[in-house]
Amino acid sequence: MIFSSALIENAVNEFARLPGVGKKTALRLVLHLLKQDTAQVELFSETVARMRRQIKFCKHCHNVSDDETCSICANPARHTNVVCVVESIRDVIAIENTQQFNGVYHVLGGIISPIDGIGPEQLNIHSLVERVQQQGVEEVIMALSPTIEGDTTIYYLSKKLKEWPVKITTIARGIAFGGELEYADEMTLARSLTNRLPLENYLQQGSR
Amino acid sequence: MIFSSALIENAVNEFARLPGVGKKTALRLVLHLLKQDTAQVELFSETVARMRRQIKFCKHCHNVSDDETCSICANPARHTNVVCVVESIRDVIAIENTQQFNGVYHVLGGIISPIDGIGPEQLNIHSLVERVQQQGVEEVIMALSPTIEGDTTIYYLSKKLKEWPVKITTIARGIAFGGELEYADEMTLARSLTNRLPLENYLQQGSR
Repeated sequence: MIFSSALIENAVNEFARLPGVGKKTALRLVLHLLKQDTAQVELFSETVARMRRQIKFCKHCHNVSDDETCSICANPARHTNVVCVVESIRDVIAIENTQQFNGVYHVLGGIISPIDGIGPEQLNIHSLVERVQQQGVEEVIMALSPTIEGDTTIYYLSKKLKEWPVKITTIARGIAFGGELEYADEMTLARSLTNRLPLENYLQQGSR
Repeated sequence: MIFSSALIENAVNEFARLPGVGKKTALRLVLHLLKQDTAQVELFSETVARMRRQIKFCKHCHNVSDDETCSICANPARHTNVVCVVESIRDVIAIENTQQFNGVYHVLGGIISPIDGIGPEQLNIHSLVERVQQQGVEEVIMALSPTIEGDTTIYYLSKKLKEWPVKITTIARGIAFGGELEYADEMTLARSLTNRLPLENYLQQGSR
């Protein structure tokens, strides 16, 4: 793409580095910002830079945080004896948005994936074992993706934790709400049969 | 969406103000930037802010510019006697990318649209008339969108310019390359028939 302004060209190139943003979209965003007040664009720019500069990772759960301890770990209303193990920050946000979980998290920072060169030592596993060991954790919920890597990680963690008297659970696999039975893969369908629930439970929880 | 960090939340909200960027996409962009080096994010942020802060509009053609005069108007190889009138900066970039135009531009900053409250006085029309009057412009090419508003603007400009010995042309309307005849609207099809070309011309210009 040919631009008659280096200022525009540089800004477009910076936006185009973002995932899923091509040159055309980048140009649209830049031309939009060009129409905004300078103060508004400075605010955008400063907010993004400040986020990266000041963000911390919670020393307990490795979640993103504004302080040493994240707002979830610091919340006295959360049950610290129930720890939900997730792959990434994104999963914390997803689960928080359900407003159904009242415990705390542990962000692994990835899952075991030999093909990508990610072994247990690259993940926040040691600190999870420490938490279980020292802080009276009663239940560890494995909320990992239902993939081979996710299952491998769950298996590895459960072996690491088996010395301590902690209950280990995983989130339910099954047919998603609104999902059509015939399009579900065999594995999911099989597990949802194996882990079938008494109808009373289902009716109690209600549908959406 | 619930975030456990105000830094993240603010950055997501800023991205979500951009056109076509929802909360989910904004979060994806923010989490991507979180994984980048601080220096890289500062560069992104500074490039965007500098663009808005330092951008100028060319005093001749109103195109975006790094200086008083844009790089197109300042280029001695461009023919200043052929002026291409466009609605916006975006159109300048589109035409420049064809690499087929060797004249200069005049950016109106919009088109006449009574429904949106845009009349001739809101557009850069006075400076166009001045250029034609004072700078020996020989041809004005109207490269406006083929809409009612575009045609209204062309009609208005042609009346404004009719006192001066300047040739006024419009870009060709017709069936787009790769366009299916049966899906073309009647107006376009009609015009492409009226303005039909001798086959020799067509073959000379080649297809893409």
